[in-house]
Amino acid sequence: MDNTFDISLADIVVSHAASHPQKTATVFGERRQTYRELEQRTARLASALAQQGVNASEPVLWMGQNSDRLLEVVLACARLGAIVCPANWRLSEDEFVHVLEDFAPRVVFWQREEIGTTVESARNHSEAAKAALWYCIDKEGACEYESLLTGGRAELPALAVKGTSPLMAIYTAAFSGKPRGALMTHQAIITQGTLFGTLQEIDSDYTFLNSGPMFHIGNWMSTWPTFLFGGTNIFVRRVVAQELLDIIHRERCTGAYLVHSTQEEMAALNCQGDWDISCLKGFPGSPAWSAMTSPGTSLWHRRVGGYGQSETMGLITFTAFAAQMSGTHGRPSPLVVIKLADDQGSEVAAGEVGEILVRGPAVMAGYYRRDAEPEQRLLNGWHRTNDLGRREADGSLVFIGPKQRMIKSGVENIYPAELERVVQALPGVNAAAIIGVPDTKWIQIVVAIVVRESGHAVTETDVIEHCRAHLASYKKPSRVIFTESLPRQASGLVDYDQLDADHGGGNYPGGSTRSR
Amino acid sequence: MDNTFDISLADIVVSHAASHPQKTATVFGERRQTYRELEQRTARLASALAQQGVNASEPVLWMGQNSDRLLEVVLACARLGAIVCPANWRLSEDEFVHVLEDFAPRVVFWQREEIGTTVESARNHSEAAKAALWYCIDKEGACEYESLLTGGRAELPALAVKGTSPLMAIYTAAFSGKPRGALMTHQAIITQGTLFGTLQEIDSDYTFLNSGPMFHIGNWMSTWPTFLFGGTNIFVRRVVAQELLDIIHRERCTGAYLVHSTQEEMAALNCQGDWDISCLKGFPGSPAWSAMTSPGTSLWHRRVGGYGQSETMGLITFTAFAAQMSGTHGRPSPLVVIKLADDQGSEVAAGEVGEILVRGPAVMAGYYRRDAEPEQRLLNGWHRTNDLGRREADGSLVFIGPKQRMIKSGVENIYPAELERVVQALPGVNAAAIIGVPDTKWIQIVVAIVVRESGHAVTETDVIEHCRAHLASYKKPSRVIFTESLPRQASGLVDYDQLDADHGGGNYPGGSTRSR
Repeated sequence: MDNTFDISLADIVVSHAASHPQKTATVFGERRQTYRELEQRTARLASALAQQGVNASEPVLWMGQNSDRLLEVVLACARLGAIVCPANWRLSEDEFVHVLEDFAPRVVFWQREEIGTTVESARNHSEAAKAALWYCIDKEGACEYESLLTGGRAELPALAVKGTSPLMAIYTAAFSGKPRGALMTHQAIITQGTLFGTLQEIDSDYTFLNSGPMFHIGNWMSTWPTFLFGGTNIFVRRVVAQELLDIIHRERCTGAYLVHSTQEEMAALNCQGDWDISCLKGFPGSPAWSAMTSPGTSLWHRRVGGYGQSETMGLITFTAFAAQMSGTHGRPSPLVVIKLADDQGSEVAAGEVGEILVRGPAVMAGYYRRDAEPEQRLLNGWHRTNDLGRREADGSLVFIGPKQRMIKSGVENIYPAELERVVQALPGVNAAAIIGVPDTKWIQIVVAIVVRESGHAVTETDVIEHCRAHLASYKKPSRVIFTESLPRQASGLVDYDQLDADHGGGNYPGGSTRSR
Repeated sequence: MDNTFDISLADIVVSHAASHPQKTATVFGERRQTYRELEQRTARLASALAQQGVNASEPVLWMGQNSDRLLEVVLACARLGAIVCPANWRLSEDEFVHVLEDFAPRVVFWQREEIGTTVESARNHSEAAKAALWYCIDKEGACEYESLLTGGRAELPALAVKGTSPLMAIYTAAFSGKPRGALMTHQAIITQGTLFGTLQEIDSDYTFLNSGPMFHIGNWMSTWPTFLFGGTNIFVRRVVAQELLDIIHRERCTGAYLVHSTQEEMAALNCQGDWDISCLKGFPGSPAWSAMTSPGTSLWHRRVGGYGQSETMGLITFTAFAAQMSGTHGRPSPLVVIKLADDQGSEVAAGEVGEILVRGPAVMAGYYRRDAEPEQRLLNGWHRTNDLGRREADGSLVFIGPKQRMIKSGVENIYPAELERVVQALPGVNAAAIIGVPDTKWIQIVVAIVVRESGHAVTETDVIEHCRAHLASYKKPSRVIFTESLPRQASGLVDYDQLDADHGGGNYPGGSTRSR
């Protein structure tokens, strides 16, 4: 009996049509469909795509914002064994051209609204774009997406799609400067989705607002469990605080992907209580936000935290798995094993910093069309995360930071993330980022970029002495620069490239300043 | 990149030595060991077994009661890719001989205490036993198990054990009358264990008392999650109520495998509050039991229920996945897809009774050494559970009962389990079982065996009229027999063979009267 992971997302969409026939699967504005309808529409779309030559492993590109149609496209491709990449819709024309050339899609689904001009320019400047079939998803006039779909047959010949085959490509710049498509398998999505779903107590009564960017892994970490457990996925094109309040109020959403600043914006808009969003179970925020939402009670809500990356379909270590532990990033889930290793792959001693290596069903199936490169990431069967970590005495993990963002000061290795955590713990500091600035004597010197809490007058000396008190002296900053705010990427992560550009950073030993 | 399920229980025992080095892994009486020690002992045992010729796929038999040594044996075999069968220690000599002949072990670990005489008789009457190496696990004199283990090397050469390979054989009589060894894979144990662990909120602070029989799947459904999340497994040889109270009190167990009658025995013994077992988080029982334990608060505790079998590594449908549903047995987890089918494997209409077919990583890798037979259980890649079910209008599942225990009355199929549920709902009925009795005109007639609630005087007419009111008339019993109690198997399930023998049952269309 061949018992290789023998179910796929394609099987689950068919199964859900039987197990959750009348349950609402997706909502997008006025559009809503049941799981039975979702099954039927994805069968038609898959059949139509197959007629256009989309076979197993064929690349399909999504150049649009969040949409119920994106989930349809992914599930249709699941039925064919094809691979979908949701491109970052915030990309510049040049960056879109890079994705088009790198992904070389057979089919492109694209959105005219808001990003159409950039998409069309990129299309005109890409050779690969000419070989693709392009379908617009907007409703203006006759919708190309709908025409394609309704042209498909209702009955789809049964295709055996292995759970170990890839379904999605998520572009990430973790390793080199250039983004590459990490390939998520059905197996990774199903196993990680099962774990994350039960941990969050996601059931078929769960209603998740997909308000996070769907070109990143973070939002999918809730989309998939909601789908897997037969809940309702609600999509909003992009973040507009008032629209989110409307939807949560109307659809009684129990979960949503919201960054802190969006929560605060929503709390301010709702100061009169115009929207009832008490259905939303989340994490505490400001007192105003916490008062208008309900506290989540699942194990995940009570002990949130962990470490992961796109290449591992999100989190692989969790703080939820013990009430108390020394490390800040928990312990591995049973879906992976990890090892902290030196460059040769040998385990480092406990307490030493090493690269985090991972193995298990959650790990990606390599990078899309970089067959030569994955070897760089593979060491005797282990996936090299390119991230540094350390084990505490109780075996729990501390994630230090990306390997590239290591600063070399003389013979010493300094990890900005470690230092940042220390600086941020100083009262009066609101945010801090550490960069390395080239130095003829020391290779690099450590510079701290600090945002003060309003009303506090933390000085350069305060910061340096605080570091000296908590870390080996060689790690302390040589200089502290105070600013009003830190530059951030769309994801909310600090934009270290911009920081380096602003403050003269460079000369990093990893050869790149890119962070995750 | 080969991303077939590429971790095994062997990887996890090594990983736990790093992630949970000082955590207590197992306790058995006075013996206790940490995860680091467990890793070291299983490495030595695996090395010793390899020296004795135990290679991948080699069978190792456990003829003993519950023990920490059983987990060691399983994990040592995990490191070799070998297969362990924990035999039912309550078996008769003849039944032991059947297991020995069927499993043909390379190595047997056996227990002298309590069952030694029967084991030795079986050994003397089995040809296969002569080809095996026998190691006694008892402490009397020099322990053969310890001698074997300490003779192994501390360092074990790295062996690549695939997650899709089998690790355990659990004997079950589900399909034919003769028990066969269902093969659990590493993949099934890890994925099911992850799901069941998070659903029960099992973390590394969890302390599970293995007081259920370890030759059945039920107890392992908590042993494995406790191991996978780095908790503590406590073993007790067999159920002795006072000993269980001692252990729960002393070790502060948070979970235990306890059948209702054991709970009541413990509650009676503890009526003076001599033992503090408030640490135990469980399901409500009698008021006295509930008062001395704590209510479990996990999703599993709040919505317990589902359907599964040994062949699927326990439960595959769960009532936990929705607050409300029509069916009594919930919906499939994302680790399987199910189908209700006729004998040709075609899906039956909603509302119709069909056989439950399953596919997914939780499904067994066939029966041990029955390469010809699994085909009977496989239909186009689906595992035939040999169990009947029905979908309700909302897609949720009702498990009807084993296919064999179908009664044929004229042209009608009658499912005892369906009828039993109806009879048991009649006030004054404590328990009920339905059998078919041969009949020259009707093939079989339906006979209900009923145990009254004490103080109630339910009559034959009451039972028959109640059935007529709730079911198609042809399903109602022709006769009702009142008894003091129903015969039960060691597992607590009704012993239908005994019932048939006592009351003249027989002539079943499935050709066998065996239930699960």
